[in-house]
Amino acid sequence: MKIGFIGLGDMGQSMARHLIGAGHDLAVWARREASAAALVTEGAAWCASPAELAARSELVITMVGGSADVEDLVLRSDGLLAGFAAGAVHVDMSTIAPATARQLAAGYAERGIGWLDAPVSGGPKGALEATLAIMVGGEATTLARLQPVFEVLGSRIVHIGESGAGQVAKACNQMIMVAAIEASAEALHLAAANGVDVAKVRTALMGGSAGSRVLEVMGERMVSGDFDKGVDARLHHKDFALIMAEAHALGAPLPIAAAVGQQLNALMARGGARQDTAALITVLDAMAPQDRRTTE
Amino acid sequence: MKIGFIGLGDMGQSMARHLIGAGHDLAVWARREASAAALVTEGAAWCASPAELAARSELVITMVGGSADVEDLVLRSDGLLAGFAAGAVHVDMSTIAPATARQLAAGYAERGIGWLDAPVSGGPKGALEATLAIMVGGEATTLARLQPVFEVLGSRIVHIGESGAGQVAKACNQMIMVAAIEASAEALHLAAANGVDVAKVRTALMGGSAGSRVLEVMGERMVSGDFDKGVDARLHHKDFALIMAEAHALGAPLPIAAAVGQQLNALMARGGARQDTAALITVLDAMAPQDRRTTE
Repeated sequence: MKIGFIGLGDMGQSMARHLIGAGHDLAVWARREASAAALVTEGAAWCASPAELAARSELVITMVGGSADVEDLVLRSDGLLAGFAAGAVHVDMSTIAPATARQLAAGYAERGIGWLDAPVSGGPKGALEATLAIMVGGEATTLARLQPVFEVLGSRIVHIGESGAGQVAKACNQMIMVAAIEASAEALHLAAANGVDVAKVRTALMGGSAGSRVLEVMGERMVSGDFDKGVDARLHHKDFALIMAEAHALGAPLPIAAAVGQQLNALMARGGARQDTAALITVLDAMAPQDRRTTE
Repeated sequence: MKIGFIGLGDMGQSMARHLIGAGHDLAVWARREASAAALVTEGAAWCASPAELAARSELVITMVGGSADVEDLVLRSDGLLAGFAAGAVHVDMSTIAPATARQLAAGYAERGIGWLDAPVSGGPKGALEATLAIMVGGEATTLARLQPVFEVLGSRIVHIGESGAGQVAKACNQMIMVAAIEASAEALHLAAANGVDVAKVRTALMGGSAGSRVLEVMGERMVSGDFDKGVDARLHHKDFALIMAEAHALGAPLPIAAAVGQQLNALMARGGARQDTAALITVLDAMAPQDRRTTE
């Protein structure tokens, strides 16, 4: 399939590479041409603008920053909308506001262009290993047609509902995940305040009723104090702005999410933007210093 | 082994039955003798007081309400302390304050009586199926000696540290678990506010970075609206009083746990004491009504 790809960050590089590997005819565009150099060497075509990319593609995938970035890519004078022919599809895999997804879908529909919002969970590791979870909003028939492409990128593809529903699911994912990180941080902070070996507490809790992927992965980072690997906390900080804007717009009371957002604010203020979000435990330690050295 | 057992509630009944089944010489005492009737029929000996139970036991296991209940059982005039011979061991599997566990351990140690705090996770189902997770504080040598008894009751037995450390781990377990329940409730509430199928959102999120036992078990109850099965929310409400008292005593800042505790307070006020804690979602729905009916 003739596919265009925009958004060659950590995750996008891996995803674009999988698409070339699967035999697709891939074109790329990037703000900085250098970001595309490796992929062009591997066979991707370079396009001079998003419009040029859209004009030669049956499918364009975007994997960029947030709502404003996607809107700009679509609506700018040399943007995707200026290039797409009727029948083409834009699949946005960025994390953006559900309302933005719905607006873009409506604008495309008027011109006979398809849209899916398909945000992902799994981070750079999931992108590299093609094991992303993909939450899809939009027409089921469009998803069915593109299923083979999604299967090149992820291992769990779920159709949630209409346009925007994929983004709602992603917001839910982030709310639950970051709340679990903060709750794990508070639990291990309390254990340390009691002088108890936090590594043993984490081990005891895994596999029980408090067990989760977060306790396994981020809990280990809290125990070791190594916050260099993982997902930049600034990305979750961005997600929480989206989530709280949704809550505001819909009149949805989200007391825990709101409190988690404040802890993320504090982590940003501490210079933790590029640390893994497990560093939320350092916000508590800064408030009430604890020694988390363990014997295990 | 000659074992005494006190606390014949939902979980204690199953645990005592497993001990008889494993061939132990079991004695019981209960506030209301009727609670012990079934077990006495199955071979347990009835004792007239905790002191009498302690006097004939190498090991006494208690599985009762909270700190005050355990202190009363030990310290009353016809309590365990009045009956124990030196060399006996008291294993308390209730959920109590770490400080209470430490005080009782110290009092016993002066008289040559052993102590382990060994709170559990897994609920009535885990007790019935003998798959409880058991978090143990106290002397490792005492645990090693009693390991075969614990293995009759649970499938994950972890030594956390000194006396009280088992209770600290239990507090950590409850903090993480109930925060995950509230975060899941908020996520599904937000999905419903967006008109998105909450069953599909839950399915999409399980197995991903937000995946947890809580989303699997309690998430299903939120989707179905069935809060009759599971663990009474009043027990978690009790646990949160303990956790926040610990936080207060130690000067540990626990912002998310504090907010979760407020939602539990609201659930109690709504008459949800004997509902499963998944009913936390009804607190949000009461604030901002949502239709969570799904098509799945």
